[in-house]
Amino acid sequence: MSTAIPTIRYSQGIVKLIDQTRLPHKLVFINCRDVATLWEAIKALRVRGAPALGVAAGFGVVLGIKTYRGEDVGELIAIAHQTAEYLATSRPTAVNLFYGLSRMRRRAELCRRMDVKAARKALIAEAFAIYEEDRALCRNIGRYGAAVIKNGQSVLTVCNAGALATADYGTALGVMYSAKALGKNFKVYACETRPLLQGARLTTWELMRAKIDVTLICDNMAATLMQQGKVDVVITGADRISANGDSANKIGTYMLAVLAKYHKIPFYIAAPSTTFDLSITDGSKIPIEERHPDEVTGFGGARTATPGVKVYNPAFDVTDHSLITGIITERGIIAPVNRRNVKLSVSVGSTLEPRGVRSCGNAFR
Amino acid sequence: MSTAIPTIRYSQGIVKLIDQTRLPHKLVFINCRDVATLWEAIKALRVRGAPALGVAAGFGVVLGIKTYRGEDVGELIAIAHQTAEYLATSRPTAVNLFYGLSRMRRRAELCRRMDVKAARKALIAEAFAIYEEDRALCRNIGRYGAAVIKNGQSVLTVCNAGALATADYGTALGVMYSAKALGKNFKVYACETRPLLQGARLTTWELMRAKIDVTLICDNMAATLMQQGKVDVVITGADRISANGDSANKIGTYMLAVLAKYHKIPFYIAAPSTTFDLSITDGSKIPIEERHPDEVTGFGGARTATPGVKVYNPAFDVTDHSLITGIITERGIIAPVNRRNVKLSVSVGSTLEPRGVRSCGNAFR
Repeated sequence: MSTAIPTIRYSQGIVKLIDQTRLPHKLVFINCRDVATLWEAIKALRVRGAPALGVAAGFGVVLGIKTYRGEDVGELIAIAHQTAEYLATSRPTAVNLFYGLSRMRRRAELCRRMDVKAARKALIAEAFAIYEEDRALCRNIGRYGAAVIKNGQSVLTVCNAGALATADYGTALGVMYSAKALGKNFKVYACETRPLLQGARLTTWELMRAKIDVTLICDNMAATLMQQGKVDVVITGADRISANGDSANKIGTYMLAVLAKYHKIPFYIAAPSTTFDLSITDGSKIPIEERHPDEVTGFGGARTATPGVKVYNPAFDVTDHSLITGIITERGIIAPVNRRNVKLSVSVGSTLEPRGVRSCGNAFR
Repeated sequence: MSTAIPTIRYSQGIVKLIDQTRLPHKLVFINCRDVATLWEAIKALRVRGAPALGVAAGFGVVLGIKTYRGEDVGELIAIAHQTAEYLATSRPTAVNLFYGLSRMRRRAELCRRMDVKAARKALIAEAFAIYEEDRALCRNIGRYGAAVIKNGQSVLTVCNAGALATADYGTALGVMYSAKALGKNFKVYACETRPLLQGARLTTWELMRAKIDVTLICDNMAATLMQQGKVDVVITGADRISANGDSANKIGTYMLAVLAKYHKIPFYIAAPSTTFDLSITDGSKIPIEERHPDEVTGFGGARTATPGVKVYNPAFDVTDHSLITGIITERGIIAPVNRRNVKLSVSVGSTLEPRGVRSCGNAFR
């Protein structure tokens, strides 16, 4: 089952990742023994998904300090900060990466009075705490989110917000795994998610493995499915959510939100508190990564477009909170999505431990 | 320039086509010496685009009768009908194919009192008439349509409704070529058009050849461009338009129409009278071709999706007339788009010769 997918692990000085660029054809693992290898794996999307990047951030800082052989804890802490600064340059949009890095930096600062051995232990413990917390976040999102899928319905999703994007069974797909565990019968349409086809390659792989009924479509077919009444609910993940609920996610998400609005279909985001960035007032201020034109002019090795053509390749888009029916977090469902309800549900500097059910508003009217 | 693209030609018993599946990397021609070869070329989209299929239909019937060596004109006419019936099985959605075939069949019936030689000549003349008329239709669509592109604007299009889709410079792209010839300065965003990438492969090739500023995007990026204010007008072609103006076109067109509505951007269809099917009352009755799953599970030659995944692959979608700002035909612009204005502009059994300017309503309020 999906829960057993070992997306990212740490053991004995090695961050072990599934190389997601090789899926679905090969299940290949990469052993990152140094920070540069991990940085490249993040940049090249060998590991991806906002929550998984938060986990990678924690283990990445651990990789950075592991070779320090001195006795000066100040030097160790400086290396932790340098490692965090370096990893922060890998990808700009998913806030979980920065969340993970800043947690590690804060923990490092708390180690100034320890010896090097104790500080190292504390940082490893912090990285594992991020990992374990992400697992709990997924499970609670799944628990609250299962209610948005009714028996017999069809769910549409984009990109991959599943086990491959987190340390556990995912956010948007976690909701589906949870609904399935409750015995609900439903089908899923997966948008292929150009340019890098995370939907076609990863989401179908995960869902088929979990024996969930999944049908693959091209992104431009979603509107037609909705027109035909074949979509009951849309559920996606998020990479960064601003204080008013505007949500950055994989390119194509905003399109689905507008189409869902037009067709009067509920549109949900599933994301943990770690994906909220309350320092950003609205979505227009979320930095959007633009990636290499080659991703659009072809796929993998195949070149398809006219050589030399100009390309626009934003990796993410921003969905206005007014288009979002609800945001499923580990604490309940934020609905309606607005600044007040986001603030009520997500506190700055939260410990990120589930604090019991709280649903703001009622998404199921 | 674009006008010189020899998409489809007939000479001395051979239909010569550009194999559009090889573009943009190779400009390869196919010589269709028999009907089976042409049927395969249509089925495999070596020749595609609704108006070009109308032209292929005419020349296809000519291929069918060319090997008849008898003296019985009744037999010749029967062969023409059989050829038309066979070619009609190639692809179901574009009405121009059926229009071309039924014109050839009607002409064949008018040959019953001729000898075989005269009948053959009449059928060849009819096929060339369809070809020449299509050229005139393109030019007049371009002439009327140029007004929808203002200087300095950005135009979004999908698939390929250009020289490669017609016997001349195209419909939607014809409007662009015409605007450029008038000295207008504008830029074009081309949706790549999954699964077969006609936008990435054909439209960028044509527009770059014509020195029109074109930028390629994935289909799921169109919404973001609109959100950013980067699209001033959407112009697409059509494969079949029902009596009320509902328009079938390449999958992804309906998505663009809904997105344009939401962002208050004008959305135009450019199509000749030959693309209207007044026997069909509304879009729900237009047959939509579903194509092979392999088109979706791969990209170029590469297999990308999880093996064995279920796929939904409609090749076309239907845009409700209420979402269309205007339909640019060879006779003017139909706007607002409704049953009455379609009827006023397009008559059944029309000779399809331009009959001067008529714009129903005013699309430029």
